[in-house]
Amino acid sequence: MLFRLLLEYDGSGFSGWQSQAGATRTVQEVLEAAFEQLDAGPARVTGSGRTDAGVHAEGQVAGVSLSRDFEPEALKRALNAILPADLAVLGVDRASADFDARRDATGKTYRYGVWNGRASSPLRSARWHHVAIPLDIVVMKQAAVELLGTHDFACFQAAGSDVVDTVRDLRRLEVAGRTGAEIVFLIEGSGFLWHMVRTLAGTLLEVGRGRRDPNSMGALLASRDRRQAGPTAPAKGLTLVSVEYGAGAAKGALASGVS
Amino acid sequence: MLFRLLLEYDGSGFSGWQSQAGATRTVQEVLEAAFEQLDAGPARVTGSGRTDAGVHAEGQVAGVSLSRDFEPEALKRALNAILPADLAVLGVDRASADFDARRDATGKTYRYGVWNGRASSPLRSARWHHVAIPLDIVVMKQAAVELLGTHDFACFQAAGSDVVDTVRDLRRLEVAGRTGAEIVFLIEGSGFLWHMVRTLAGTLLEVGRGRRDPNSMGALLASRDRRQAGPTAPAKGLTLVSVEYGAGAAKGALASGVS
Repeated sequence: MLFRLLLEYDGSGFSGWQSQAGATRTVQEVLEAAFEQLDAGPARVTGSGRTDAGVHAEGQVAGVSLSRDFEPEALKRALNAILPADLAVLGVDRASADFDARRDATGKTYRYGVWNGRASSPLRSARWHHVAIPLDIVVMKQAAVELLGTHDFACFQAAGSDVVDTVRDLRRLEVAGRTGAEIVFLIEGSGFLWHMVRTLAGTLLEVGRGRRDPNSMGALLASRDRRQAGPTAPAKGLTLVSVEYGAGAAKGALASGVS
Repeated sequence: MLFRLLLEYDGSGFSGWQSQAGATRTVQEVLEAAFEQLDAGPARVTGSGRTDAGVHAEGQVAGVSLSRDFEPEALKRALNAILPADLAVLGVDRASADFDARRDATGKTYRYGVWNGRASSPLRSARWHHVAIPLDIVVMKQAAVELLGTHDFACFQAAGSDVVDTVRDLRRLEVAGRTGAEIVFLIEGSGFLWHMVRTLAGTLLEVGRGRRDPNSMGALLASRDRRQAGPTAPAKGLTLVSVEYGAGAAKGALASGVS
């Protein structure tokens, strides 16, 4: 029996999504342990993609194959009774036998939060990246427009990644907010390379600080050189908002499980 | 030299505002220790009021008398360099010699956050009170209207408080949001009794659950009996938003220190 899960987690206490050498606590592992406790294992949970250590999610999607059947709403309740406070299942539904959370995803939306106050903000320190230097919103918006569309994003991929096809479709790169307050980047695309969202954020922040020309994004993309892009912005500012599965997918049904 | 401070803090790690027997870490103590480190002490910091253990603030106001003069912006920076991550000074200005943060306050605004999703929310668990039962917004709004205005709020005062004059002016009690999502109570008044805001929230939540008649608020107030009101809602959902000091006060100047 294949199920689809809609997940929310606070990334602060996780070494990311996926089990890795040396990682002590991953979202995947904690979920798989919960299924084992439900006597539904050994279950293998597949996420729509990995989130790095410290990255949050309010709409991660995963698939899981279980050895026995469950009523979806009852499965959700049973899981939430077991899971720790920093991980919750927002929805469960039955998936078709060929569902693959990673390959079937047609798009993802991320949010990156920047606190641009002069002083750091105690109530935002867990999930906002603090930049004390006043950021120029107008030039960040200018740069964002040049990055939109289908491009080779090789320069935004973490060094060491072995992905060869680095062309992605960036559908939305919105800069919202005002100087001296909360600034939010909303980033939607067909898919993202390793560290791509955080490096896009780090590059926009250099533009906003006046350290980088907003009209240089075309040349930067053309360089295909990671060293030409800005730094990888801190993980804690990043949240995976949603995963899209095309018109036919039951994402809507999953989301309705929240209310 | 008397200064006025605008403060933000995450209440999770504090035993409230004020030093008490057995309290290990209070906002007041951490501030006074910072002034001592600046060689500006022994300083006595007076807040606009006490916040309970676990209650947050994004606009607490305090007065402090220092043994030597400082340029306000430099004092702010020096304090923020010393203070821990869960406490920040958003603004500093010089206060008139007779300024009293507590007595001069003409009003306060609080926000109480309720997460009404069926499942608990990992990204909200630190600052939202989770109520899984669907709440009826309409009846909570009805009840709120009956509580507005100048009343004797004795029934909303914590047992054991020795305050005798329990008449307060509740200027605003707004219920915003929708069932199955974030619900926010915005509460503004001339002043509040001990636990009054949290007991107002706890009582409204009983109305929203259908356990209490929305038209019973008048009778509840008339009872003057704490046992007739609802439970004290958890501290973590409460945030002190701002403190008002009337038209003549420099609250505006302080707030501008944020950006």
